[in-house]
Amino acid sequence: MSSSSAAPRRGEKSGAAAKPPMRDALVAAAFRLFLERGYEQTTVDDIVALAGVGRRSFFRYFPSKEDVVFPDHERCLADMTAFLSSGDGAEEPVRRVCDAARLVLLMYAENPDFSVQRYRLTKQVPGLRAYELSVVWRYERALADYLRRRLRDRRDGTLHADVIAAAVVAAHNNALRSWLRSGAGIDPEAAVDHALGSVRSTFGTEPAARPSGWATAQDRAEDVMVVVTRRGTPLWRVVQEIETAPARD
Amino acid sequence: MSSSSAAPRRGEKSGAAAKPPMRDALVAAAFRLFLERGYEQTTVDDIVALAGVGRRSFFRYFPSKEDVVFPDHERCLADMTAFLSSGDGAEEPVRRVCDAARLVLLMYAENPDFSVQRYRLTKQVPGLRAYELSVVWRYERALADYLRRRLRDRRDGTLHADVIAAAVVAAHNNALRSWLRSGAGIDPEAAVDHALGSVRSTFGTEPAARPSGWATAQDRAEDVMVVVTRRGTPLWRVVQEIETAPARD
Repeated sequence: MSSSSAAPRRGEKSGAAAKPPMRDALVAAAFRLFLERGYEQTTVDDIVALAGVGRRSFFRYFPSKEDVVFPDHERCLADMTAFLSSGDGAEEPVRRVCDAARLVLLMYAENPDFSVQRYRLTKQVPGLRAYELSVVWRYERALADYLRRRLRDRRDGTLHADVIAAAVVAAHNNALRSWLRSGAGIDPEAAVDHALGSVRSTFGTEPAARPSGWATAQDRAEDVMVVVTRRGTPLWRVVQEIETAPARD
Repeated sequence: MSSSSAAPRRGEKSGAAAKPPMRDALVAAAFRLFLERGYEQTTVDDIVALAGVGRRSFFRYFPSKEDVVFPDHERCLADMTAFLSSGDGAEEPVRRVCDAARLVLLMYAENPDFSVQRYRLTKQVPGLRAYELSVVWRYERALADYLRRRLRDRRDGTLHADVIAAAVVAAHNNALRSWLRSGAGIDPEAAVDHALGSVRSTFGTEPAARPSGWATAQDRAEDVMVVVTRRGTPLWRVVQEIETAPARD
Protein backbone atom coordinates (compact mmCIF):
# COMPACT_ATOMS: atom_id res chain seq x y z
CA MET A 1 0.00 0.00 0.00
CA SER A 2 1.28 3.39 -0.89
CA SER A 3 0.47 5.42 2.20
CA SER A 4 3.31 6.47 4.38
CA SER A 5 3.05 6.42 8.14
CA ALA A 6 2.66 10.21 7.96
CA ALA A 7 -0.56 9.91 6.00
CA PRO A 8 -3.76 9.82 8.02
CA ARG A 9 -5.46 6.46 8.04
CA ARG A 10 -8.86 5.29 9.12
CA GLY A 11 -9.49 5.91 12.82
CA GLU A 12 -6.77 8.51 13.09
CA LYS A 13 -8.69 11.58 12.09
CA SER A 14 -7.80 13.63 15.10
CA GLY A 15 -9.79 16.64 13.89
CA ALA A 16 -13.13 14.81 13.84
CA ALA A 17 -15.32 15.95 16.70
CA ALA A 18 -17.90 13.55 18.11
CA LYS A 19 -21.11 13.89 16.09
CA PRO A 20 -24.16 15.16 17.95
CA PRO A 21 -26.76 12.37 18.27
CA MET A 22 -29.54 14.63 16.96
CA ARG A 23 -27.65 15.19 13.75
CA ASP A 24 -27.23 11.44 13.31
CA ALA A 25 -30.92 10.91 14.04
CA LEU A 26 -31.87 13.40 11.33
CA VAL A 27 -29.63 11.69 8.77
CA ALA A 28 -31.07 8.28 9.68
CA ALA A 29 -34.66 9.53 9.46
CA ALA A 30 -33.99 11.27 6.15
CA PHE A 31 -32.48 8.19 4.54
CA ARG A 32 -35.23 5.92 5.77
CA LEU A 33 -37.79 8.21 4.10
CA PHE A 34 -35.73 8.73 0.93
CA LEU A 35 -35.55 4.97 0.45
CA GLU A 36 -39.22 4.35 1.31
CA ARG A 37 -40.85 7.25 -0.56
CA GLY A 38 -38.19 8.66 -2.81
CA TYR A 39 -36.10 11.79 -2.36
CA GLU A 40 -38.40 14.23 -4.13
CA GLN A 41 -41.46 12.99 -2.24
CA THR A 42 -39.85 13.54 1.16
CA THR A 43 -40.08 16.99 2.79
CA VAL A 44 -38.04 18.44 5.61
CA ASP A 45 -41.27 18.34 7.66
CA ASP A 46 -41.49 14.57 7.11
CA ILE A 47 -37.88 14.17 8.26
CA VAL A 48 -38.22 16.20 11.45
CA ALA A 49 -41.52 14.46 12.29
CA LEU A 50 -39.89 11.03 12.06
CA ALA A 51 -36.81 12.19 14.01
CA GLY A 52 -39.02 13.78 16.64
CA VAL A 53 -37.40 17.22 16.51
CA GLY A 54 -38.38 20.68 15.26
CA ARG A 55 -37.64 22.25 11.87
CA ARG A 56 -35.20 24.64 13.46
CA SER A 57 -33.04 21.75 14.67
CA PHE A 58 -32.85 20.44 11.11
CA PHE A 59 -31.66 23.76 9.71
CA ARG A 60 -29.16 24.15 12.54
CA TYR A 61 -27.29 21.20 11.09
CA PHE A 62 -28.21 21.29 7.41
CA PRO A 63 -28.75 24.37 5.21
CA SER A 64 -31.03 22.39 2.87
CA LYS A 65 -32.51 18.96 2.19
CA GLU A 66 -29.63 18.24 -0.19
CA ASP A 67 -27.07 18.73 2.56
CA VAL A 68 -28.49 15.92 4.69
CA VAL A 69 -27.59 13.52 1.85
CA PHE A 70 -23.90 14.42 2.20
CA PRO A 71 -23.54 15.02 5.93
CA ASP A 72 -19.78 14.40 6.19
CA HIS A 73 -18.31 16.37 3.28
CA GLU A 74 -17.80 19.62 5.16
CA ARG A 75 -15.85 17.83 7.89
CA CYS A 76 -13.88 15.90 5.29
CA LEU A 77 -13.05 19.05 3.33
CA ALA A 78 -11.86 20.67 6.56
CA ASP A 79 -9.77 17.58 7.41
CA MET A 80 -8.25 17.60 3.93
CA THR A 81 -7.40 21.29 4.05
CA ALA A 82 -5.85 20.87 7.51
CA PHE A 83 -3.83 17.87 6.32
CA LEU A 84 -2.53 19.76 3.27
CA SER A 85 -1.48 22.78 5.30
CA SER A 86 0.10 20.72 8.09
CA GLY A 87 3.19 19.66 6.13
CA ASP A 88 6.62 21.21 6.45
CA GLY A 89 6.95 21.75 2.70
CA ALA A 90 9.40 18.90 2.23
CA GLU A 91 6.74 16.35 1.20
CA GLU A 92 6.68 15.14 -2.37
CA PRO A 93 3.69 17.17 -3.67
CA VAL A 94 2.02 14.47 -5.77
CA ARG A 95 2.21 11.96 -2.96
CA ARG A 96 0.76 14.55 -0.61
CA VAL A 97 -2.34 15.20 -2.71
CA CYS A 98 -2.83 11.46 -3.22
CA ASP A 99 -2.76 10.98 0.55
CA ALA A 100 -5.21 13.88 0.92
CA ALA A 101 -7.59 12.31 -1.61
CA ARG A 102 -7.39 9.08 0.37
CA LEU A 103 -9.15 10.86 3.24
CA VAL A 104 -12.30 11.13 1.13
CA LEU A 105 -12.24 7.41 0.40
CA LEU A 106 -11.85 6.67 4.10
CA MET A 107 -14.87 8.85 4.88
CA TYR A 108 -16.97 6.78 2.46
CA ALA A 109 -15.50 3.53 3.77
CA GLU A 110 -16.42 4.38 7.38
CA ASN A 111 -20.08 3.71 6.60
CA PRO A 112 -20.25 1.23 3.72
CA ASP A 113 -24.02 0.62 3.79
CA PHE A 114 -24.83 4.32 3.97
CA SER A 115 -22.38 5.10 1.16
CA VAL A 116 -23.84 2.45 -1.15
CA GLN A 117 -27.41 3.60 -0.44
CA ARG A 118 -26.46 7.18 -1.16
CA TYR A 119 -24.69 6.20 -4.37
CA ARG A 120 -27.88 4.56 -5.65
CA LEU A 121 -29.96 7.54 -4.56
CA THR A 122 -27.63 10.07 -6.18
CA LYS A 123 -27.74 8.25 -9.49
CA GLN A 124 -31.53 8.62 -9.54
CA VAL A 125 -31.87 12.30 -8.55
CA PRO A 126 -30.34 14.86 -10.95
CA GLY A 127 -30.33 17.58 -8.28
CA LEU A 128 -28.19 15.42 -6.01
CA ARG A 129 -25.85 14.63 -8.84
CA ALA A 130 -25.35 18.37 -9.40
CA TYR A 131 -24.75 18.86 -5.68
CA GLU A 132 -22.17 16.08 -5.71
CA LEU A 133 -20.36 17.66 -8.67
CA SER A 134 -20.02 20.90 -6.73
CA VAL A 135 -18.58 18.98 -3.76
CA VAL A 136 -16.11 17.16 -5.99
CA TRP A 137 -15.13 20.50 -7.48
CA ARG A 138 -14.33 21.85 -3.99
CA TYR A 139 -12.08 18.86 -3.24
CA GLU A 140 -10.34 19.36 -6.58
CA ARG A 141 -9.82 23.07 -5.85
CA ALA A 142 -8.31 22.25 -2.45
CA LEU A 143 -5.82 19.86 -4.09
CA ALA A 144 -5.07 22.27 -6.94
CA ASP A 145 -4.53 25.21 -4.57
CA TYR A 146 -2.01 23.17 -2.59
CA LEU A 147 -0.21 22.09 -5.76
CA ARG A 148 -0.21 25.64 -7.14
CA ARG A 149 1.65 26.77 -4.03
CA ARG A 150 4.09 23.87 -4.19
CA LEU A 151 4.73 24.17 -7.96
CA ARG A 152 4.73 27.97 -7.97
CA ASP A 153 8.31 28.26 -9.14
CA ARG A 154 8.05 25.60 -11.78
CA ARG A 155 7.45 26.48 -15.40
CA ASP A 156 3.72 26.06 -16.15
CA GLY A 157 3.22 25.39 -12.44
CA THR A 158 -0.45 26.40 -12.46
CA LEU A 159 -1.20 24.24 -15.46
CA HIS A 160 0.53 21.23 -13.94
CA ALA A 161 -1.19 21.81 -10.59
CA ASP A 162 -4.63 21.83 -12.22
CA VAL A 163 -3.92 18.77 -14.37
CA ILE A 164 -2.49 16.72 -11.49
CA ALA A 165 -5.36 17.65 -9.16
CA ALA A 166 -7.88 16.60 -11.82
CA ALA A 167 -6.02 13.33 -12.43
CA VAL A 168 -5.95 12.55 -8.69
CA VAL A 169 -9.68 13.22 -8.34
CA ALA A 170 -10.50 11.12 -11.42
CA ALA A 171 -8.39 8.20 -10.16
CA HIS A 172 -9.95 8.45 -6.71
CA ASN A 173 -13.46 8.55 -8.15
CA ASN A 174 -12.74 5.61 -10.43
CA ALA A 175 -11.77 3.52 -7.39
CA LEU A 176 -14.63 4.86 -5.27
CA ARG A 177 -17.17 4.01 -7.98
CA SER A 178 -15.74 0.49 -8.38
CA TRP A 179 -16.17 -0.02 -4.65
CA LEU A 180 -19.69 1.44 -4.57
CA ARG A 181 -20.79 -0.55 -7.62
CA SER A 182 -19.51 -3.72 -5.98
CA GLY A 183 -21.89 -2.98 -3.11
CA ALA A 184 -18.86 -2.39 -0.88
CA GLY A 185 -17.73 -5.91 -1.74
CA ILE A 186 -14.11 -5.13 -2.66
CA ASP A 187 -11.34 -3.67 -0.50
CA PRO A 188 -11.72 0.12 -0.90
CA GLU A 189 -8.22 0.99 0.29
CA ALA A 190 -6.59 -1.46 -2.09
CA ALA A 191 -8.69 -0.05 -4.95
CA VAL A 192 -7.80 3.57 -4.24
CA ASP A 193 -4.14 2.81 -3.64
CA HIS A 194 -3.98 1.04 -6.98
CA ALA A 195 -5.64 3.96 -8.78
CA LEU A 196 -3.58 6.65 -7.03
CA GLY A 197 -0.40 4.61 -7.55
CA SER A 198 -0.99 4.99 -11.28
CA VAL A 199 -1.21 8.79 -10.94
CA ARG A 200 1.93 8.88 -8.81
CA SER A 201 3.80 6.82 -11.41
CA THR A 202 2.74 9.30 -14.07
CA PHE A 203 3.35 12.59 -12.27
CA GLY A 204 5.35 11.94 -9.12
CA THR A 205 9.02 12.62 -8.69
CA GLU A 206 9.57 9.66 -6.38
CA PRO A 207 8.74 6.05 -7.23
CA ALA A 208 5.25 5.09 -6.05
CA ALA A 209 4.82 1.92 -4.07
CA ARG A 210 3.21 -0.20 -6.72
CA PRO A 211 0.35 -2.62 -6.23
CA SER A 212 1.64 -6.17 -6.61
CA GLY A 213 2.08 -7.29 -10.19
CA TRP A 214 3.27 -3.92 -11.44
CA ALA A 215 6.60 -3.43 -13.17
CA THR A 216 9.34 -3.47 -10.60
CA ALA A 217 12.28 -1.94 -12.45
CA GLN A 218 12.19 1.05 -10.10
CA ASP A 219 12.66 -1.22 -7.07
CA ARG A 220 16.22 -1.73 -8.19
CA ALA A 221 16.76 1.86 -9.31
CA GLU A 222 19.80 2.26 -7.13
CA ASP A 223 21.45 -0.71 -8.83
CA VAL A 224 20.82 0.51 -12.35
CA MET A 225 22.85 2.84 -14.50
CA VAL A 226 21.28 4.52 -17.51
CA VAL A 227 23.60 5.66 -20.25
CA VAL A 228 22.19 7.92 -22.93
CA THR A 229 24.43 8.40 -25.90
CA ARG A 230 24.15 9.46 -29.51
CA ARG A 231 24.42 6.68 -32.04
CA GLY A 232 27.80 6.92 -33.70
CA THR A 233 29.58 8.06 -30.54
CA PRO A 234 32.92 6.22 -30.41
CA LEU A 235 32.79 3.29 -28.02
CA TRP A 236 35.79 4.49 -26.04
CA ARG A 237 33.91 7.63 -25.17
CA VAL A 238 30.93 5.59 -23.91
CA VAL A 239 33.23 3.44 -21.81
CA GLN A 240 34.92 6.52 -20.41
CA GLU A 241 31.50 7.91 -19.51
CA ILE A 242 30.59 4.73 -17.63
CA GLU A 243 33.92 4.52 -15.85
CA THR A 244 33.77 8.10 -14.61
CA ALA A 245 30.12 7.97 -13.53
CA PRO A 246 29.83 9.04 -9.87
CA ALA A 247 29.84 6.06 -7.53
CA ARG A 248 26.87 5.52 -5.21
CA ASP A 249 27.32 4.97 -1.48
CA MET B 1 -0.06 24.61 -33.33
CA SER B 2 -0.58 20.98 -32.56
CA SER B 3 -3.71 20.26 -34.50
CA SER B 4 -3.56 18.04 -37.50
CA SER B 5 -5.43 18.89 -40.67
CA ALA B 6 -7.97 16.24 -39.68
CA ALA B 7 -8.95 18.18 -36.57
CA PRO B 8 -11.82 20.59 -36.94
CA ARG B 9 -10.83 24.23 -36.82
CA ARG B 10 -12.72 27.44 -36.51
CA GLY B 11 -15.12 28.01 -39.36
CA GLU B 12 -15.17 24.36 -40.35
CA LYS B 13 -17.90 23.11 -38.09
CA SER B 14 -19.98 21.48 -40.79
CA GLY B 15 -22.62 20.30 -38.32
CA ALA B 16 -23.52 23.79 -37.14
CA ALA B 17 -26.91 24.81 -38.50
CA ALA B 18 -27.67 28.49 -38.98
CA LYS B 19 -29.02 29.86 -35.70
CA PRO B 20 -32.59 31.17 -35.73
CA PRO B 21 -32.59 34.97 -35.35
CA MET B 22 -35.24 34.81 -32.57
CA ARG B 23 -32.95 32.62 -30.49
CA ASP B 24 -30.10 35.11 -30.93
CA ALA B 25 -32.43 37.98 -30.01
CA LEU B 26 -33.41 36.22 -26.80
CA VAL B 27 -29.77 35.66 -25.83
CA ALA B 28 -28.92 39.30 -26.57
CA ALA B 29 -31.90 40.60 -24.56
CA ALA B 30 -31.11 38.27 -21.65
CA PHE B 31 -27.48 39.37 -21.42
CA ARG B 32 -28.34 43.04 -21.67
CA LEU B 33 -30.66 42.64 -18.67
CA PHE B 34 -28.26 40.39 -16.72
CA LEU B 35 -25.57 43.03 -17.02
CA GLU B 36 -27.89 45.96 -16.25
CA ARG B 37 -29.92 44.47 -13.38
CA GLY B 38 -28.11 41.32 -12.35
CA TYR B 39 -28.97 37.72 -13.15
CA GLU B 40 -31.20 37.02 -10.14
CA GLN B 41 -33.18 40.23 -10.64
CA THR B 42 -34.01 39.39 -14.26
CA THR B 43 -37.07 37.23 -15.01
CA VAL B 44 -37.95 35.33 -18.15
CA ASP B 45 -40.85 37.80 -18.53
CA ASP B 46 -38.37 40.68 -18.60
CA ILE B 47 -36.34 38.92 -21.27
CA VAL B 48 -39.24 38.16 -23.59
CA ALA B 49 -40.61 41.70 -23.15
CA LEU B 50 -37.30 43.20 -24.26
CA ALA B 51 -36.93 40.73 -27.14
CA GLY B 52 -40.54 41.40 -28.20
CA VAL B 53 -41.62 37.74 -28.24
CA GLY B 54 -43.88 35.56 -26.09
CA ARG B 55 -42.90 33.32 -23.18
CA ARG B 56 -43.57 30.21 -25.26
CA SER B 57 -40.91 31.27 -27.76
CA PHE B 58 -38.38 31.49 -24.94
CA PHE B 59 -39.12 28.00 -23.68
CA ARG B 60 -39.06 26.62 -27.22
CA TYR B 61 -35.34 27.40 -27.28
CA PHE B 62 -34.36 27.27 -23.62
CA PRO B 63 -35.67 24.90 -20.93
CA SER B 64 -34.79 27.44 -18.18
CA LYS B 65 -33.26 30.84 -17.52
CA GLU B 66 -29.91 29.14 -16.83
CA ASP B 67 -29.83 27.63 -20.30
CA VAL B 68 -29.90 31.03 -22.02
CA VAL B 69 -26.55 31.77 -20.34
CA PHE B 70 -24.94 28.81 -22.13
CA PRO B 71 -26.75 28.79 -25.46
CA ASP B 72 -24.10 26.91 -27.46
CA HIS B 73 -23.10 24.02 -25.23
CA GLU B 74 -25.68 21.54 -26.56
CA ARG B 75 -24.51 22.14 -30.12
CA CYS B 76 -20.89 21.91 -29.05
CA LEU B 77 -21.47 18.66 -27.15
CA ALA B 78 -23.18 17.25 -30.24
CA ASP B 79 -20.29 18.41 -32.45
CA MET B 80 -17.79 16.84 -30.06
CA THR B 81 -19.63 13.52 -29.92
CA ALA B 82 -19.92 13.46 -33.72
CA PHE B 83 -16.21 14.24 -34.08
CA LEU B 84 -15.22 11.47 -31.66
CA SER B 85 -17.37 8.87 -33.38
CA SER B 86 -16.30 9.90 -36.90
CA GLY B 87 -12.81 8.41 -36.74
CA ASP B 88 -11.74 5.14 -38.27
CA GLY B 89 -10.19 3.87 -35.02
CA ALA B 90 -6.63 4.41 -36.20
CA GLU B 91 -6.26 7.84 -34.56
CA GLU B 92 -3.95 8.18 -31.59
CA PRO B 93 -6.54 8.31 -28.78
CA VAL B 94 -4.98 11.05 -26.63
CA ARG B 95 -4.51 13.32 -29.62
CA ARG B 96 -8.10 12.67 -30.60
CA VAL B 97 -9.57 13.77 -27.27
CA CYS B 98 -7.29 16.83 -27.25
CA ASP B 99 -8.62 17.79 -30.67
CA ALA B 100 -12.17 17.21 -29.41
CA ALA B 101 -11.57 19.47 -26.39
CA ARG B 102 -10.30 22.12 -28.77
CA LEU B 103 -13.81 22.38 -30.22
CA VAL B 104 -15.03 23.80 -26.92
CA LEU B 105 -12.33 26.43 -26.92
CA LEU B 106 -13.25 27.39 -30.47
CA MET B 107 -16.88 27.80 -29.45
CA TYR B 108 -15.84 30.27 -26.75
CA ALA B 109 -13.44 32.03 -29.11
CA GLU B 110 -16.16 32.57 -31.71
CA ASN B 111 -17.71 35.26 -29.50
CA PRO B 112 -14.98 36.75 -27.33
CA ASP B 113 -17.02 39.59 -25.82
CA PHE B 114 -19.95 37.35 -25.00
CA SER B 115 -17.63 34.73 -23.48
CA VAL B 116 -15.86 37.25 -21.27
CA GLN B 117 -19.18 38.77 -20.10
CA ARG B 118 -20.50 35.33 -19.27
CA TYR B 119 -17.33 34.39 -17.40
CA ARG B 120 -17.75 37.42 -15.15
CA LEU B 121 -21.44 36.69 -14.66
CA THR B 122 -20.84 33.01 -13.85
CA LYS B 123 -18.28 33.89 -11.19
CA GLN B 124 -20.91 36.01 -9.40
CA VAL B 125 -23.88 33.62 -9.50
CA PRO B 126 -23.45 30.29 -7.63
CA GLY B 127 -26.35 28.68 -9.51
CA LEU B 128 -24.64 29.37 -12.84
CA ARG B 129 -21.38 27.99 -11.52
CA ALA B 130 -23.20 24.75 -10.61
CA TYR B 131 -24.78 24.66 -14.08
CA GLU B 132 -21.37 25.11 -15.67
CA LEU B 133 -19.91 22.27 -13.60
CA SER B 134 -22.62 19.94 -14.89
CA VAL B 135 -21.81 20.99 -18.47
CA VAL B 136 -18.09 20.42 -17.93
CA TRP B 137 -18.91 17.00 -16.48
CA ARG B 138 -20.81 16.09 -19.67
CA TYR B 139 -17.82 17.05 -21.82
CA GLU B 140 -15.55 15.01 -19.59
CA ARG B 141 -17.90 12.01 -19.81
CA ALA B 142 -17.92 12.25 -23.63
CA LEU B 143 -14.12 12.19 -23.72
CA ALA B 144 -13.89 9.41 -21.12
CA ASP B 145 -16.46 7.26 -22.95
CA TYR B 146 -14.45 7.55 -26.15
CA LEU B 147 -11.21 6.68 -24.35
CA ARG B 148 -12.83 3.76 -22.53
CA ARG B 149 -13.76 2.28 -25.89
CA ARG B 150 -10.30 2.89 -27.33
CA LEU B 151 -8.39 1.62 -24.27
CA ARG B 152 -10.79 -1.28 -23.62
CA ASP B 153 -8.18 -3.96 -24.11
CA ARG B 154 -5.48 -2.22 -22.11
CA ARG B 155 -4.81 -3.13 -18.49
CA ASP B 156 -6.61 -0.60 -16.27
CA GLY B 157 -8.14 0.86 -19.44
CA THR B 158 -11.11 2.41 -17.62
CA LEU B 159 -8.89 4.01 -15.01
CA HIS B 160 -6.56 5.46 -17.63
CA ALA B 161 -9.51 6.67 -19.72
CA ASP B 162 -10.98 8.55 -16.75
CA VAL B 163 -7.65 10.04 -15.71
CA ILE B 164 -6.72 11.19 -19.21
CA ALA B 165 -10.17 12.71 -19.83
CA ALA B 166 -9.93 14.64 -16.55
CA ALA B 167 -6.42 15.84 -17.41
CA VAL B 168 -7.54 17.02 -20.85
CA VAL B 169 -10.48 18.93 -19.40
CA ALA B 170 -8.31 20.50 -16.69
CA ALA B 171 -5.68 21.60 -19.22
CA HIS B 172 -8.36 22.99 -21.54
CA ASN B 173 -10.02 24.88 -18.69
CA ASN B 174 -6.69 26.25 -17.50
CA ALA B 175 -6.10 27.74 -20.95
CA LEU B 176 -9.70 28.89 -21.32
CA ARG B 177 -9.58 30.69 -17.95
CA SER B 178 -6.28 32.37 -18.86
CA TRP B 179 -7.87 33.67 -22.02
CA LEU B 180 -11.08 34.80 -20.27
CA ARG B 181 -9.15 36.48 -17.44
CA SER B 182 -7.07 38.34 -20.00
CA GLY B 183 -10.34 39.79 -21.35
CA ALA B 184 -9.78 37.79 -24.55
CA GLY B 185 -6.46 39.59 -24.89
CA ILE B 186 -4.22 36.58 -25.55
CA ASP B 187 -4.35 34.10 -28.43
CA PRO B 188 -6.80 31.40 -27.26
CA GLU B 189 -5.66 28.75 -29.72
CA ALA B 190 -2.00 29.13 -28.77
CA ALA B 191 -2.96 28.92 -25.08
CA VAL B 192 -5.01 25.75 -25.48
CA ASP B 193 -2.46 24.11 -27.77
CA HIS B 194 0.25 24.76 -25.20
CA ALA B 195 -1.86 23.29 -22.39
CA LEU B 196 -3.04 20.27 -24.39
CA GLY B 197 0.50 19.71 -25.67
CA SER B 198 1.55 19.15 -22.09
CA VAL B 199 -1.14 16.47 -21.63
CA ARG B 200 -0.14 14.80 -24.89
CA SER B 201 3.50 14.73 -23.78
CA THR B 202 2.43 13.06 -20.54
CA PHE B 203 -0.05 10.50 -21.83
CA GLY B 204 0.19 10.27 -25.60
CA THR B 205 1.96 7.51 -27.50
CA GLU B 206 3.17 9.86 -30.19
CA PRO B 207 5.30 12.93 -29.61
CA ALA B 208 3.17 16.05 -29.33
CA ALA B 209 4.10 19.07 -31.36
CA ARG B 210 5.70 21.12 -28.62
CA PRO B 211 5.22 24.81 -28.14
CA SER B 212 8.48 26.58 -28.90
CA GLY B 213 10.94 26.55 -26.04
CA TRP B 214 10.04 23.08 -24.85
CA ALA B 215 12.59 20.34 -24.40
CA THR B 216 13.41 18.88 -27.75
CA ALA B 217 15.10 15.59 -26.84
CA GLN B 218 12.37 13.71 -28.68
CA ASP B 219 13.25 15.48 -31.91
CA ARG B 220 16.48 13.56 -32.01
CA ALA B 221 15.08 10.31 -30.62
CA GLU B 222 16.27 8.33 -33.60
CA ASP B 223 19.86 9.45 -33.01
CA VAL B 224 19.97 8.44 -29.37
CA MET B 225 20.76 5.10 -27.81
CA VAL B 226 19.75 4.34 -24.25
CA VAL B 227 21.69 1.65 -22.43
CA VAL B 228 20.32 0.40 -19.13
CA THR B 229 22.69 -1.73 -17.13
CA ARG B 230 23.16 -2.84 -13.55
CA ARG B 231 25.94 -1.16 -11.69
CA GLY B 232 28.77 -3.67 -11.36
CA THR B 233 28.17 -5.21 -14.76
CA PRO B 234 31.60 -5.82 -16.31
CA LEU B 235 32.43 -3.13 -18.87
CA TRP B 236 33.10 -5.66 -21.62
CA ARG B 237 29.51 -6.80 -21.31
CA VAL B 238 28.22 -3.24 -21.67
CA VAL B 239 30.37 -2.71 -24.72
CA GLN B 240 29.14 -5.98 -26.20
CA GLU B 241 25.57 -4.82 -25.59
CA ILE B 242 26.20 -1.55 -27.42
CA GLU B 243 28.01 -3.20 -30.31
CA THR B 244 25.26 -5.75 -30.90
CA ALA B 245 22.36 -3.26 -30.59
CA PRO B 246 20.15 -3.47 -33.68
CA ALA B 247 21.08 -0.84 -36.25
CA ARG B 248 18.46 1.71 -37.35
CA ASP B 249 17.75 2.42 -41.01
